[in-house]
Amino acid sequence: MGESMTGAQALLATLAGAGVEVVFANPGTSEMHFVAALEADPRVRGVLGLAEGAVTGAADGYARMSGTPGVTLLHLGPGLGNGLANLHNARRAHSPVVNVVGDHATYHKRFDAPLESDIDAVAGTLGRVLRSENPADVGPDAAAALAAAQDAPGGVATLVLPADASWSDGGIPSAPVAPRAPAPVSTVDPIAHVLRSGEAVTLLLGGVACRERGLRAASRIAEATGARLLLETFPARLERGAGLPTVERLGYVAEQAEQQLDGTRHLIVAGAKPPATFFAYPGKRGNLVPEQATLHTLAEPGDDVTGALEELAELVARDTEPALAPAHRPDLPSGELTVANWADVIGALLPDDAIVVDETNTSGLLVAAATAGAPRHDVLSLTGGAIGQGIPVATGAAVAAPERPVINLQADGSAMYTISALWTQAREGLNVTTVILNNRAYAILRMELQRTGAGDVDPAKAGLFDLSTPDIDFARIAEGMGVPATTATTAEELADRFRRALAEPGPNLIDARIPPLL
Amino acid sequence: MGESMTGAQALLATLAGAGVEVVFANPGTSEMHFVAALEADPRVRGVLGLAEGAVTGAADGYARMSGTPGVTLLHLGPGLGNGLANLHNARRAHSPVVNVVGDHATYHKRFDAPLESDIDAVAGTLGRVLRSENPADVGPDAAAALAAAQDAPGGVATLVLPADASWSDGGIPSAPVAPRAPAPVSTVDPIAHVLRSGEAVTLLLGGVACRERGLRAASRIAEATGARLLLETFPARLERGAGLPTVERLGYVAEQAEQQLDGTRHLIVAGAKPPATFFAYPGKRGNLVPEQATLHTLAEPGDDVTGALEELAELVARDTEPALAPAHRPDLPSGELTVANWADVIGALLPDDAIVVDETNTSGLLVAAATAGAPRHDVLSLTGGAIGQGIPVATGAAVAAPERPVINLQADGSAMYTISALWTQAREGLNVTTVILNNRAYAILRMELQRTGAGDVDPAKAGLFDLSTPDIDFARIAEGMGVPATTATTAEELADRFRRALAEPGPNLIDARIPPLL
Repeated sequence: MGESMTGAQALLATLAGAGVEVVFANPGTSEMHFVAALEADPRVRGVLGLAEGAVTGAADGYARMSGTPGVTLLHLGPGLGNGLANLHNARRAHSPVVNVVGDHATYHKRFDAPLESDIDAVAGTLGRVLRSENPADVGPDAAAALAAAQDAPGGVATLVLPADASWSDGGIPSAPVAPRAPAPVSTVDPIAHVLRSGEAVTLLLGGVACRERGLRAASRIAEATGARLLLETFPARLERGAGLPTVERLGYVAEQAEQQLDGTRHLIVAGAKPPATFFAYPGKRGNLVPEQATLHTLAEPGDDVTGALEELAELVARDTEPALAPAHRPDLPSGELTVANWADVIGALLPDDAIVVDETNTSGLLVAAATAGAPRHDVLSLTGGAIGQGIPVATGAAVAAPERPVINLQADGSAMYTISALWTQAREGLNVTTVILNNRAYAILRMELQRTGAGDVDPAKAGLFDLSTPDIDFARIAEGMGVPATTATTAEELADRFRRALAEPGPNLIDARIPPLL
Repeated sequence: MGESMTGAQALLATLAGAGVEVVFANPGTSEMHFVAALEADPRVRGVLGLAEGAVTGAADGYARMSGTPGVTLLHLGPGLGNGLANLHNARRAHSPVVNVVGDHATYHKRFDAPLESDIDAVAGTLGRVLRSENPADVGPDAAAALAAAQDAPGGVATLVLPADASWSDGGIPSAPVAPRAPAPVSTVDPIAHVLRSGEAVTLLLGGVACRERGLRAASRIAEATGARLLLETFPARLERGAGLPTVERLGYVAEQAEQQLDGTRHLIVAGAKPPATFFAYPGKRGNLVPEQATLHTLAEPGDDVTGALEELAELVARDTEPALAPAHRPDLPSGELTVANWADVIGALLPDDAIVVDETNTSGLLVAAATAGAPRHDVLSLTGGAIGQGIPVATGAAVAAPERPVINLQADGSAMYTISALWTQAREGLNVTTVILNNRAYAILRMELQRTGAGDVDPAKAGLFDLSTPDIDFARIAEGMGVPATTATTAEELADRFRRALAEPGPNLIDARIPPLL
């Protein structure tokens, strides 16, 4: 007792005291004392990423699967910058993520040394920022950052740690601070009234409503009242498969989403934002709330969404059971791989209790249908639209749930942003099977070029959307990082490689060659 | 005449009118109309990068070698975020770089769609930000951004382009706007007085003073007055080799820098900032201006640094010639590769008129000495400390100077941040030879762990600095992206591979296995 402690040691003690077991790290000199504390403490494990996008995406995947904060260690402003896109996705996923960003010593900042930049301005675009000016602040600031990240519905908080606050004595570990709990709602009675109106109602679910309890309550409501159910387009974590309600997702393509919502007179959102198109398109409406519909909010993302749905189900569906997906798998297909049949291979062979990280983009149109009756699984999707999320999120999910198989269904173009996360999978022996949907194009941009009506360029000839010159050999890249890999060009080959990958421990990658949609 | 034009077309016309020939791009849906305009216009070439760090680093390398703006096309806030670290390096290099960052349509922002984020706050950390609210603004804003990036001494400017300003008619191309020229200086007479004082003087050169004219003038001054010359630690572009003055660089390690400046009574800076340590270290001074020395500024980076040096040379060294490096190459070494002998291989074989992109970190301690008498070459170094710069900068330099051989001397850990830039080299057939100094460690962090005195951890055992589990096979990774590659473990092998790589057109990579310093 009374022994002196540095700020770095107080930070580590605060994290460990709050139950943090993993720090995803890409450190540098200004973080050296925290690294030393981390290396010395068996309670917290440092997981190294070779680029910050791998680190921040892994923290997001870890947070989604563990329900506890994903903690990162990043090197000054440039480290935070490199990690920003996947932190954006984490923010959109409401994942509790805490960044520890090292900074120059307080007295060194006046020299404007080469790595000096405005960390606080960049971090401020993500959420709360705390800056520890002295070692005594570090523990309390860390506890506050952990709480801020866990304030319902969850988000990103950043602790900026100057090197002298880290290395100086005077650190004081801080006890955990209780985060803000989900807020109770008072909307259940009027929404029940809407559901009983006999008019066409759609209930749009998002956030925690995509988990089992929320889905079961929502399904009971739909069964009892005839309301239509939809899920937000890109849920952070969706529980689905045989024995759970199957709910269609709102389409990414605006025309599809409009059709799904057509005729709705009352649109009720529960944990989701009012729907809007992903992008604006010339001459098209961005607001997806139909003009003739009234928007009602059962629960905002930070509210007690699950409790509200269950309370509502008790009111309008007391004796109704949810509609659950029967066990069903597609037959194993054969022949050259296509956008259609590769998904059936996955549906036919998806293992029990899988975590599916879905960054398939255009290649994944049929995955949801092919896996609806597969064994129960979680789907983690691209919440913020910043591609390059799949491999890191799969990495973090596998760290959080080492006993579960992680299947990363991964578009080729998106894979290249954060490809180095494969190395972390090899280093940690993570049980991730990556299936690259390699169509040798930014196929989604070919589609969007058509949809935006931009100019007379032939989408298939637009050089900036072409990934075939040269071809990317993902199997070689993966092997270069220590991940065993194969290539598949037929459905039979994909099935064979996928079975073998699942049977072996550690990571594996399959480069599945499919034709592009366009 | 009078034909209508979109904002995107006006942007392209403004860029082309200002002489922009290349746009380094990683586009998305919100940039589609600019992409269509780019694909349709033969004056401007789109160079695709698979991740934004590759794009922004390439723009920096292009700007350093062409002296004209490097232009990027990035996809909203996450695209800018992914590119931020190399934009930080570009800012520190005073490279003229203009980012065109697509944004949602102005009327779409209220929906807070998944990709919405605060672009302006992030871009504001780099330099000037312009946002075109309507198509008529795009041309003038682009011209202003080009000028802002070229205002002496050069920097980063960002044009945020909402999708509707891009796709709507009403665009007006804008004529180039003259950037702010380097400011004349009035310090030459008093500095001449200091140089004639007979006291110990050191002249620290930076920025454009590291180019031939500045170096020749500075060398004459040193020869005539006995002043010591030093270069800033990480020049953006240094001209050196046989027939040019050889000037030592200020050491990265503080103890070395202190020794270099020891005894100086007058420290004159010309285009460089007053020297400070790269990081702070417990109990050590950060300010490298010796306590007994007086600091004098001949020219700030935005001043007419070269003119000031030449004027000063006329005053104090009218009849003195500069001291020029004689042609000299080390002998070709033999045996297992070491930190010492690999550099001699490069010095022995460096081709004429090479561009050397140096991100060697700890492995490169002896490169400067080994190449001092090699044929004349440019060295582009890591200006902002954000590692992951080498491969992209080499890519952009090769686009700017296709007739010159580009040699990228590249640390292994740093390479992995932006490894996908190799694919752009293959796609564009760029004449880049990458030599990976593969010591299987973040060796610089092992060194820094010792120097910061952080804890009792054995640097060689710190898991977070180890890159050997698993080993990274850079040759496989390169081949996976279409770059021919080999591995070298002896000096003879490195010489053989290096010769062959230089003899072949297009990119090549050599994975040189060397032991780490620690």
